Amino acid sequence: MKELSDIGLVGLAVMGENLILNMANNGYTVTAYNRSTEKVDAFLAGRAKGKSIRGAHSVEELVASLAKPRKIMLMVKAGAPVDAFIEQILPHLEEGDILIDGGNTHFPDTNRRVDYCASKGILFVGAGVSGGEEGALTGPSIMPGGAKDAWHHVKPIFQSIAAKVEDGTPCCDWVGENGAGHFVKMVHNGIEYGDMQLICEAYQIMKDLLGMSADEMHEVFAEWNEGELDSYLTEITRDILKTKDEDGEPLVDKILDTAGQKGTGKWTGVAALEMGVPLTLIGEAVFARCLSAQKEERVEAAKIISGPTPKFEGDKKAFIEDLRNALFAAKIVSYAQGYVLMREAAKEFGWELNNGGIALMWRGGCIIRSVFLGNIKEAFDTNPALTNLLLDPYFQQRVDAAQAGWRNVVASATLNGIPAPTLTSALSYFDGYRTARLPANLLQAQRDFFGAHTYERTDKPRGEFFHTNWTGRGGDTASSTYNA
Amino acid sequence: MKELSDIGLVGLAVMGENLILNMANNGYTVTAYNRSTEKVDAFLAGRAKGKSIRGAHSVEELVASLAKPRKIMLMVKAGAPVDAFIEQILPHLEEGDILIDGGNTHFPDTNRRVDYCASKGILFVGAGVSGGEEGALTGPSIMPGGAKDAWHHVKPIFQSIAAKVEDGTPCCDWVGENGAGHFVKMVHNGIEYGDMQLICEAYQIMKDLLGMSADEMHEVFAEWNEGELDSYLTEITRDILKTKDEDGEPLVDKILDTAGQKGTGKWTGVAALEMGVPLTLIGEAVFARCLSAQKEERVEAAKIISGPTPKFEGDKKAFIEDLRNALFAAKIVSYAQGYVLMREAAKEFGWELNNGGIALMWRGGCIIRSVFLGNIKEAFDTNPALTNLLLDPYFQQRVDAAQAGWRNVVASATLNGIPAPTLTSALSYFDGYRTARLPANLLQAQRDFFGAHTYERTDKPRGEFFHTNWTGRGGDTASSTYNA
Repeated sequence: MKELSDIGLVGLAVMGENLILNMANNGYTVTAYNRSTEKVDAFLAGRAKGKSIRGAHSVEELVASLAKPRKIMLMVKAGAPVDAFIEQILPHLEEGDILIDGGNTHFPDTNRRVDYCASKGILFVGAGVSGGEEGALTGPSIMPGGAKDAWHHVKPIFQSIAAKVEDGTPCCDWVGENGAGHFVKMVHNGIEYGDMQLICEAYQIMKDLLGMSADEMHEVFAEWNEGELDSYLTEITRDILKTKDEDGEPLVDKILDTAGQKGTGKWTGVAALEMGVPLTLIGEAVFARCLSAQKEERVEAAKIISGPTPKFEGDKKAFIEDLRNALFAAKIVSYAQGYVLMREAAKEFGWELNNGGIALMWRGGCIIRSVFLGNIKEAFDTNPALTNLLLDPYFQQRVDAAQAGWRNVVASATLNGIPAPTLTSALSYFDGYRTARLPANLLQAQRDFFGAHTYERTDKPRGEFFHTNWTGRGGDTASSTYNA
Repeated sequence: MKELSDIGLVGLAVMGENLILNMANNGYTVTAYNRSTEKVDAFLAGRAKGKSIRGAHSVEELVASLAKPRKIMLMVKAGAPVDAFIEQILPHLEEGDILIDGGNTHFPDTNRRVDYCASKGILFVGAGVSGGEEGALTGPSIMPGGAKDAWHHVKPIFQSIAAKVEDGTPCCDWVGENGAGHFVKMVHNGIEYGDMQLICEAYQIMKDLLGMSADEMHEVFAEWNEGELDSYLTEITRDILKTKDEDGEPLVDKILDTAGQKGTGKWTGVAALEMGVPLTLIGEAVFARCLSAQKEERVEAAKIISGPTPKFEGDKKAFIEDLRNALFAAKIVSYAQGYVLMREAAKEFGWELNNGGIALMWRGGCIIRSVFLGNIKEAFDTNPALTNLLLDPYFQQRVDAAQAGWRNVVASATLNGIPAPTLTSALSYFDGYRTARLPANLLQAQRDFFGAHTYERTDKPRGEFFHTNWTGRGGDTASSTYNA
């Protein structure tokens, strides 16, 4: 063990412990610290035993144990505890020392903390970490952003503990300025909500329209996982569907259908609304979780409100292939929307985001990891200025090939009364995006009619605004006071 | 003119002027004040001439001109100007005086101001006002909330200037505590976004699938306005579609399809995400405006991405009736979702909202006014504790009768590549709401698999949480650290 540690880590919950073990396994010496110091002792006597890990029982001891510039990573509860720790540690640090927040922090907090710490001479890094507990130990995806001067100091550690893709490239690279790392992690989580909901809808359609058993669906997901839907979430769905309860019945059938959530999906939706980016699929996925949580109300509603009895006619095998296409195409839409949100955030906050690099970071280690993200990386490598993934030649062709099946699935779910909010919403967006003339001309006419909000014309340059006295009563004065 | 004015109004933009004239026309004496005092003089010499309206050239003069308790209504730009005026006027007021903010204020600001003014002995009222400029003059919908002790002082004025329904009942009643009035106004605006987008989708389907002209669509909206879709927005759509440009062509065809927005729809969506209420239709309507604004990108995308060529086969007249049913059913879903949002807000903020009263306030004067709101009022009068409008016997039957047509419209739009995000999203919600068993059991299994988030079981009481060691590797410890 080196005399001084390469890095300190604060917060010994499972994620924190696993990251420390991962660092030690990669040859780094780590100081472990926790506010309740009995956790430090238990960790040292247990999982950390015999590894290049030392404990600290106070902030002073932690700081004294670290090589300069000191690198201290926080894995504590997001929010006030992070601010509290910053205040506690600041008096003990020197200019150029590095604080890293690896928690699930809302990006505006990171924006603020990077500036605040900079004013004290400290380099603050907000790093999104994804992969769950197992990923933390064996190789997570890490998305760091903030004070760029910190990057060459933490890069060797982060890239060695991160997941690797086939050719050995680590799923960790510099994301961008201030809160960019946590923003990208937030979008990752939003996309995760979307991917999970899409899989759930495919499952519901197979179950309720095709009448398939868990074992049969297990086979389908196993097959899907061998092709372009190859991903961690497809894989675990395959494994979940074959898992039996003690009585030999599929365990999934015993689980209550009320989804929990911890907020990052909501944050993504809120960011999209605030920036004016149509992020419809993730929005619907978040709302689908909310609706699932209204379990008692749905059970009552099901007794009162009726709908069609699902009835499938046709070739089941061909329909399952349509479903695979629907899932794939909708997934492309979701990632396309997520990338547009990141583009707008980059504009708003002045970040330079590396789109291909982000796809690479998500390619392994994290919950949404998939083969598909390799195609996204290629799309942005080929054209770093790509406006929308749907315009990339590969994805354009792939969606084109998928769209007949996708439409069939959505129409079938619609006619049979099976809810498929994200498969459906993705298709509405796809059709809206490729429509040169949307009906917003009528909407602008309405706004001008009741609020004198003015409109632009197709036969005049952009930026010229017109008002019509529609009723003959309102006068010709345009308004800027009534907000609708 | 009385020696002392009944009320003072600050902010002489069109809405403010029209409210003053409305008050004067109803027998009240009003003091008009504006920071730029030349506006006061112009108003007195112009539209206010000969009416019971006096001007004030300073805050002192304004205060001195009012009968006690003083009632001062602000019609200024929402945000900082409201706070600035409060600070300016407070030193001149006495305990029990009343400040009313009639602007488009975000409800959290009103929550804060009611408390702040209360601490100074002043009664603060946040009043949502809808109806546009014409409504302000002839009878708006007014939604006041805040310091309840103010209500009996402002009630006579507000109820006399408000719109009236057929039996003379004013479209103004007390909404609830602190920001409740502005919250309800915000939901009104969100619903307005939804109603407008629904109409636009019906228009697009008639235009692009049925190949109808503006004149033909005018006839359809005229007919719809005679029945259960009778509403202000149907009426103005009818009138817009027959309005010609100077060259005799339909004006609507010359208007650019890029919708503007001023934020209240976004606020509604954000509030829904934050409270966990599935407000899918309004969410999609807001996003549809965002997508429409990406005009250049859509025009380019339309060249690259293809879809089916719309082709209608069947009975056009029957399909238009399906479309009417789709519009009506989706509208019910939108109002149902909006009422759930208000219910949750009432819970969160401790408001007692009068659901029937809200329907009555929206029944006339405002942009979403319609015959339909009379049915909503009846539903809540019959059952004030109604959980969801979809469960009311009238609406349940009405949607049931509409649903076959609604499904046909959504399936047809889907197969023909015509975007209909809100008609579609409403149907997904309807089907989700009436589904006792959603696929969230699989989602919970996924969350437990990768994050040890635990799940509940169908065969165990609610509140008991279980964790499965799905892989045989992760251990049996449930997690509370990884947020997904």
